[in-house]
Amino acid sequence: MNVGILGGGQLARMLVEAGTPLGLEFLIVDPKADACAAGMGRFMHTDYADHGALECLAACDRVTCDFENVPADALAAIEDRVAVRPSAAALAAAQDRLIEKERFTRLGMATPGYVEVNSRTDLQAAVETLGLPAVVKTRRMGYDGKGQMVLRDAEDLELAWRKLGEYPLIAEQWVAFDHECSITAVRASDGELRCWPVSRTWHREGILRLAASVPVTPSMQEAAATLVRRLAEDLAYVGCLTLELFVDGDRLLANEFAPRVHNSAHWTIEGAVCSQFENHLRAVCGLPLGATEARGASALVNFIGSMPAPAPWLALPGLHWHDYGKAAREGRKVGHATLCASGTGALKALLPRLEALVEPGLLRELDSTLDQA
Amino acid sequence: MNVGILGGGQLARMLVEAGTPLGLEFLIVDPKADACAAGMGRFMHTDYADHGALECLAACDRVTCDFENVPADALAAIEDRVAVRPSAAALAAAQDRLIEKERFTRLGMATPGYVEVNSRTDLQAAVETLGLPAVVKTRRMGYDGKGQMVLRDAEDLELAWRKLGEYPLIAEQWVAFDHECSITAVRASDGELRCWPVSRTWHREGILRLAASVPVTPSMQEAAATLVRRLAEDLAYVGCLTLELFVDGDRLLANEFAPRVHNSAHWTIEGAVCSQFENHLRAVCGLPLGATEARGASALVNFIGSMPAPAPWLALPGLHWHDYGKAAREGRKVGHATLCASGTGALKALLPRLEALVEPGLLRELDSTLDQA
Repeated sequence: MNVGILGGGQLARMLVEAGTPLGLEFLIVDPKADACAAGMGRFMHTDYADHGALECLAACDRVTCDFENVPADALAAIEDRVAVRPSAAALAAAQDRLIEKERFTRLGMATPGYVEVNSRTDLQAAVETLGLPAVVKTRRMGYDGKGQMVLRDAEDLELAWRKLGEYPLIAEQWVAFDHECSITAVRASDGELRCWPVSRTWHREGILRLAASVPVTPSMQEAAATLVRRLAEDLAYVGCLTLELFVDGDRLLANEFAPRVHNSAHWTIEGAVCSQFENHLRAVCGLPLGATEARGASALVNFIGSMPAPAPWLALPGLHWHDYGKAAREGRKVGHATLCASGTGALKALLPRLEALVEPGLLRELDSTLDQA
Repeated sequence: MNVGILGGGQLARMLVEAGTPLGLEFLIVDPKADACAAGMGRFMHTDYADHGALECLAACDRVTCDFENVPADALAAIEDRVAVRPSAAALAAAQDRLIEKERFTRLGMATPGYVEVNSRTDLQAAVETLGLPAVVKTRRMGYDGKGQMVLRDAEDLELAWRKLGEYPLIAEQWVAFDHECSITAVRASDGELRCWPVSRTWHREGILRLAASVPVTPSMQEAAATLVRRLAEDLAYVGCLTLELFVDGDRLLANEFAPRVHNSAHWTIEGAVCSQFENHLRAVCGLPLGATEARGASALVNFIGSMPAPAPWLALPGLHWHDYGKAAREGRKVGHATLCASGTGALKALLPRLEALVEPGLLRELDSTLDQA
């Protein structure tokens, strides 16, 4: 079976890694010549909306994406000829932060307060409604903390307006959450849905730095699963999707969702029975879904900017290395490592060795979380 | 780091699958244009001894093989320019069954009785020494039961001589073993050696059909590990090697060794902390070795001739699919599936579902082995 992928980044790369043993072949389309998945299958270096590329994609058996900001209308134009999974409509639903939040609200999912902002006056009114601090974000094309600013005082409003005012915006309430987590689900075309265990996540400067599959309470897992199921069913979703959540006491606030495999669930490659990458492809290709249970406890560390020397990392038992084959560049996700252990106790026992390799303090909260588990 | 691989079969394919996350890049050389690893990296379709190919291999950072029957002398010629791991000498040691058995004997490793056969008279003398039944094999180029015949009576001798008499031969005693097993080890260039748990193996018509990582007694594991260590150290070996053993009561008889990753250890991809493929590359590239402990219990089933429809297989929880992307052909290994469970009890509980998919009787001994575990 041939699977076309729009986007040739690390997510496409890991999809191909998971799909090759399934006997799948891939066509990858990316406007960047140095896309890190370029060498992983047939590669077309062209714009997503390029007519020739769309014709080639339409000739595949299935089409999927490694990136939500592909032109949904171009994809919609080939949906009558090839199964595009998730659908162009599901992608479009994630491309605009306001529409996304309105959907959460319509589905009865709690979110941080939000207000549409189309003018300087709107922005002023928004902070009066939401209070300060608040966050202002472009409605479209933001990721990894790009296209957003925290507003702490009147001066920040002015700065934000100068920087982002040319775009349609959304202002969001600042939530002093206890922690962040996300839940990834896979949904088959027959409606079967399976969730991986919730991932605890830790960001710095808007970029995911650390994620861990550590046991959460059954009620928390169930609450998160209920939310992602509601969303997936509303979107008639096929494939993997991830819902990012703020945890505030007992409350789960929906922050955003990603209509694709997601960084916070990369630990599933070695830390779950079937990974998000394999299950995404199983769903896209109409194969039975794999089991989403965790195998022990796992923690993943992102490599930002450049890859460290591998040897000290690989010396840790249960450490799995993922070099995306990207050139070093400041702020760029270039790889990750997942540390898997048979359980939370064994994972905690390895943390001092991991701590010696990462920036100071990164593992502090994970360490105390493992104590509670 | 660039790794050149002589041979582009499924072993090369799975080496590339394991090596891509490590950030390795590959050059694959194979005389077959339809080699199933051809699409997995840079590919040269040429003879192993081709001058241009050897120049390209010499320009890699490391060279390894997916196949022991490459011309060892051609490899020896580039060893002063690139690290060839395992060495040409180690490959040569496995290419001739007589030299291999003589090495086992020199190292004090018990083997089935064997006799060199260079004439019809030798063959007659051999069966007088060894008794009937016996097995006659070509000294070179045999695999998967090819180039060998079982001798049961005088008529078989005549047949065997007509079929194989033009080659240098070895005659071996027929061993009524209790069962077969193999042990795979990885050895680093600094001499560190790690063994995976022993694999129980089941062959039909000389081809491996089923292998399982099920607990064996500590004394059996230790005895097998001692043998493979003795062999690896004698060969100054770097990378993975597998020793195939006949188990006869408490005795372990060395049957043959493979200077490469091996079919009987494919379960290590999902069933061990670090797979044989990844550890082979770690050793070849001078990276720290990964842990070889099993993760639960695993069984692998080979697909011979053609791939079955995947859906009923993928419906089994913990089932991992490996389609090598080969055209169907009688007797050809085209893929395998590994069923992983958290332990022997959980694996046994899944066997009835696996049994419905495989040929009758294939799992019978595995099932009773799991009872004893």
